[in-house]
This record gives sequence, structure tokens and C-alpha cells, in this order.
Amino acid sequence: MHVVIVGAGIAGLCTAFELRSRGVRVTLCDPDPAGGASHAAAGMLAPAAEIVWGQDRLHQMMADSAQLYPELVARVQQATGATVAYRQNPTMVVAAEAADRQALEELEEVRHRLGLPTQMLLGSQARRREPALAGNIAGALVFPEDHQVDPRSLTGILIEHFGQDLIREQVSEVEHCGATARVHTQTGRVLEADQVLLATGLGQVPGTPRLPLRAVHGDILRLHLPAHLHPLLTHTVRGVVHRRNVYLVPRSDGSIVLGASSREDGNDLVSVEALYTLLDDARRLVPGIMDASLREVIARPRPGTPDDRPIIDRVDAHTVVSNGFFRHGVLLAPLGARIASDLLLGADPGTHRGLLGLHRFPVAASSTSH
Amino acid sequence: MHVVIVGAGIAGLCTAFELRSRGVRVTLCDPDPAGGASHAAAGMLAPAAEIVWGQDRLHQMMADSAQLYPELVARVQQATGATVAYRQNPTMVVAAEAADRQALEELEEVRHRLGLPTQMLLGSQARRREPALAGNIAGALVFPEDHQVDPRSLTGILIEHFGQDLIREQVSEVEHCGATARVHTQTGRVLEADQVLLATGLGQVPGTPRLPLRAVHGDILRLHLPAHLHPLLTHTVRGVVHRRNVYLVPRSDGSIVLGASSREDGNDLVSVEALYTLLDDARRLVPGIMDASLREVIARPRPGTPDDRPIIDRVDAHTVVSNGFFRHGVLLAPLGARIASDLLLGADPGTHRGLLGLHRFPVAASSTSH
Repeated sequence: MHVVIVGAGIAGLCTAFELRSRGVRVTLCDPDPAGGASHAAAGMLAPAAEIVWGQDRLHQMMADSAQLYPELVARVQQATGATVAYRQNPTMVVAAEAADRQALEELEEVRHRLGLPTQMLLGSQARRREPALAGNIAGALVFPEDHQVDPRSLTGILIEHFGQDLIREQVSEVEHCGATARVHTQTGRVLEADQVLLATGLGQVPGTPRLPLRAVHGDILRLHLPAHLHPLLTHTVRGVVHRRNVYLVPRSDGSIVLGASSREDGNDLVSVEALYTLLDDARRLVPGIMDASLREVIARPRPGTPDDRPIIDRVDAHTVVSNGFFRHGVLLAPLGARIASDLLLGADPGTHRGLLGLHRFPVAASSTSH
Repeated sequence: MHVVIVGAGIAGLCTAFELRSRGVRVTLCDPDPAGGASHAAAGMLAPAAEIVWGQDRLHQMMADSAQLYPELVARVQQATGATVAYRQNPTMVVAAEAADRQALEELEEVRHRLGLPTQMLLGSQARRREPALAGNIAGALVFPEDHQVDPRSLTGILIEHFGQDLIREQVSEVEHCGATARVHTQTGRVLEADQVLLATGLGQVPGTPRLPLRAVHGDILRLHLPAHLHPLLTHTVRGVVHRRNVYLVPRSDGSIVLGASSREDGNDLVSVEALYTLLDDARRLVPGIMDASLREVIARPRPGTPDDRPIIDRVDAHTVVSNGFFRHGVLLAPLGARIASDLLLGADPGTHRGLLGLHRFPVAASSTSH
């Protein structure tokens, strides 16, 4: 059994790791491994704080996937001998102003319904736990079960792990030839595959179905704090500021990842408005970030589906798709890897399968026949 | 006659060009030509708008140097066949709020005393000339005689022009040997020089005098505007916002250079506070910049002297110094090149000489004897 995976973002890499641990031979193809959305992502593993009305099904997947992370990290570390930058610090969701408390109350209510009670903190109580918070915040919730991973650490370790089995080339075509598929690369290399996994994000490969994906760009900053301010934060701080979202993820090295905008203007460069708004909202929650230095600001597009749930489905006898992870690619990677691996190997992927099929997008499904 | 110039920022490069046009053989040494302050500078040639109380002497130098620019640009273009990105668009100095009008009045008064009358514009009058200005600005002055150059264009052309005569190496020592000096590079190369010009900015070369310079860091942004907003501005806009300064320099390609902070915290990375403040002040003057994309944000230190005037002086029989150009390196480059060339060749550099000597810093002068 040989599976060729087109696309070595976090979805492709984690699925490759899952397949190899099941004894399958794997080859990955990507001209810029983990250079897309995975390169920008903050890596919050925060399903509790990510609850959105009307997305209970997506939320259940996120919670299930979050629970798989400690085991994934342990397995990767065991297989590679490397240490993944994975951190089990809690998340605090902060309301900047009185009007933003409503968002916390909604969050509390959804969690209560899911059997995950939370206690609302006054601003003063929140500041006792996280002294860098602004003096005028209106309230907070703490989610001790949330955690975080540095996606660049995890993908970097997996890229090294796959070594020569990761081909840094663009795939120019996927061709079906009887019992196998042939994956052609830009330099004319041909890979014979029993199965092909398409994990290309927004990249389109000739000979493969066109998916109903839109580019949702995010701008994200990496800040460096002087040593005397380290650590500025111990919680991951998610803020609601004038009903806009902003987050600050503190890394173990004292840096802070500040994100993220969500825009659909097709602009691959960093948006000045997004940059300004992120800084403006973040400084209202954590004034101390103004003492930081800017290490990096980048923008990347994320592939979004019409209902924000991923597409993980078999599209023909040789081909499985794993895509459309939107803002949740890092969080959903372990669960996505299991489901895609099951589909590739003909096993039953279990309860989430029906929610992830291409059939739910009738227009897109018909476009696959072209 | 052979002059070795240590440091190929805009000062070193323009002096090299001046010397060569006087028939002198020139060699430049710099591991990263034009990679320091010159790389960050916006290139405003705006002595009129740069007037500061108590710096009449510096201002006179700036005005003199600005007048040399058209000729310098023409000579560089003639010698190289390349086109320098030089632009004769006017400057508008804008007061964001009523309280900021006082800064304009001071500027008007100094100009009046210098025989350069200016007419104060109401906000509405300013917006007729520059429609992208915010609706609530409090007033403006226009300086039609100001202009601008893209320092990366000018230095890039000069770097190419000097070709093999620009050695991309660090100078490890300057040694005096009778009638000549020997300049040693990091790879062990030895250059015999009749004269040495030290134009090293904040870099320190063993065997040369220690100058009373401090690092004044500036953060600066380059913004890209979508085609339908081009040109957003036709004037260079210098704003006074809560008595802070900010400028927006529109390039011919539709991009805008937004700068610049002035801080002495020794931080070589971009300051988050400076970045935020520049964006916040700029959007108050020109709201349309929020529709731009970020092309670049960088920080560089500029060498400042205790009185903000440069040091251009002979320090011994073989050595002339040209340094300390602070925020005015690009503007002062043509005049500085003339004065330094005169000093190197034993000619009389004229009226400005007495203002630029090392003797005005007694402590520093004594430290040269160590």
C-alpha cells in the first residue's frame, strides 16, 4: 500500500504520520511544506473558547480533536526524539467593555448546555490571575482545559521526520490508470499510488475535483518581549473588543502571537487596517504589549467551506480529499488525520463522517464531474 | 591620489561620487552597502518643513544641500545612464487638531524671519489641494520648494556605478604608515590610501577616533495601495498630531512611505508602540491609508551628535570624518560630500566648516587620544 499525499500543510503531515504509524508507505509532495496557513497559525487548541452559535457539530469535532493532541504530541516525540512546542496553559476570554460581556454570557450559556460550566470573573478577579490585563476590562471566563501548540514546531519536526519521502515539488496532474493512480510532479517525476490524499488547501491540482473553498485571509503578528517583561502573560488571552475578536498567545520563550484578522478581500499582503485594529484591540486588553518589538507580521489565506466544516471525503476509487479546515486547521489536524486515514484504508471513520462529505454542497458536487 | 572610504551609506557613496568626478581614485569598503540608516530613510528633501527652533545653522546647511540635489541627480544620471527616483512634489504640513496649529504658527514665524513667507490654509483649503486629508484637520502650510528622493534608488545606482571599487568587507583596522594609511579588511586585504574617509555611521573601526554619537532609532513603514486608490496623495504630508510628528511620502509608483519614530531605547527591532503610534497618527491625517497593504516595516539606528549637527572634520594627516547626520543624512548628502571632498583634497570647504568640527565636543576630542 502506497499513499501519495498532495500538500504538506499540517493536515497532510499529520495524516502522513498517522498512516505511517499504521504501517502504510507514504510520500508527500509540496513545493513549500507548511508554508501556507500552517505557517501563520497561532496554534490555539481552544475548542471551549471557540464556541460559536449554530456550530455545535463543528464544536464537537473540535473538542474531540483537542483531546487527541496530547497523544499525538507524545507519539511524534517518541517517533522523532524531538520536543514539540506544546503547552498546557489555560485560556482566558476577556470582555473589554460592558457591552462585550454579552459575548461572554452567550459563551457561558452554550457551555452550560454542553455540560461544561464556567464561572464569570469580575475584571478585578481576572487581573488577580493575569496581572497584565488592563484595569478597565469588564469581565472574563477561564477555560483551564484549553492548550496550545506552536504549529511551526510540530510541522517542522514532521517535515524532518519524513525526509526524502517529502518531495519539494508542485504536483502538475493526478492521473488514474486502472488499479493505481499516477501523480505527476512539475519536473516530470511520476509516483505510482494505490491511494491519493488531496490536502492542498487553496491550491488546485489538475485532474482533481474542484472544491467549494473560499480564501479567508488572516493577518498575524509575532511580538518579542524584553527579558524583564517575561512572561507578560501566562494565559492565552482571547478578547472581545467592541464585539471584535483578538487573541494573544504567550509562547514559552516569552514571545506572544497576536492575531488574527479574518477577511475575504483576496489580498495576500498584510492589511494595514487589520494590523492597526489588532494592535489597537490588543493594547486595550494588555497595555504591556506596547513595550514589545515586532518580530514578524504575515498574512495567509485559509480555505473555508460554505458551512465552515471541513471536507474529508472519498471522491473516487483512488482519491480522498481532506481540506476546508478554515481557522481550525491546527486544532482539527489529529481528528482529520484519523478520518482521512480510515477513508484511505477502507475503514469506517465513525461518527463525524456524515458531516464532512462533499454531498452537502450540491453545486460543488456536480462540478466534480467536469 | 587614492582615497579609501570606510562606510558605503549615502554619505560615503555621495562623497565617493564627488571625489571621482574630481579625478580622484576611490575605493569603498562596506560589508552591507547602504544597508543601514540609508536603507530605511524616506528621502524627504524638505528643509522648509524641517525647521526647528534654535537650529538656524543646521537649517541653513539643509537648505544649501537641498539646492544641490537637482544637480547631483543630473550628474549621477549622466554618469550612470540610470534614472534616479527623484520627485519634485510639494510638502504640506498639516495640523491634526486646533492645538497643533501652534506648531504651524511657529514654523510660519521662523520662515518669515528667514524671508520665506508662507500662507496658512484652512482645513477646507488644504483638502481642496489634497482631497485624501481627513475632514477634521485644523490647518496646513504648503512648501512648494520641497522635494524627495528614494534613497534606495540613489544608493543602488551608486553601488552599481562603483562596481569592483566597492569592497563588501568589514574594515578591521586603519593603520598609519608614514606618508600613507593602510586599511585592513576582515579577510586580510590591505588597501594603501593617501587619505581615508570614515563614514561609518554608528559602526566603530579600530584605530579611528571615537565620536560622540548616539543611536537614534527610527521605525518606518512602506505601504502599497491598490490601483484604484493611486495616487492617494500628491503632496508629501507632514503631520503634527498631538504635537507628535508623522510623515507620508508618496512615491511615483503609488506606494507611500510612512515614518518615522525617533527613539533612543537601543532596540534594533521594530517597536510595537512606534508602529501603532505611526499608524494611529497617519490615519487621523489620511484615513485612506487603512485601505493599504503593508509591504515592509523596518527599524534602523541613525547616528546623532550632541547638537544634532554632523561632524565633518579632519582628525589627522590621513583621516577625515563624515558622520553624525542624524535624521538628515539623505538631505545633507550632497553638501556633506562637497565638504568632505574639500577636506580630503586640502581645499577650503567654505562657510560651514567651523560648525562641523570635532573641537565643539571637548570630551569626545580628548577621547581620541586614547
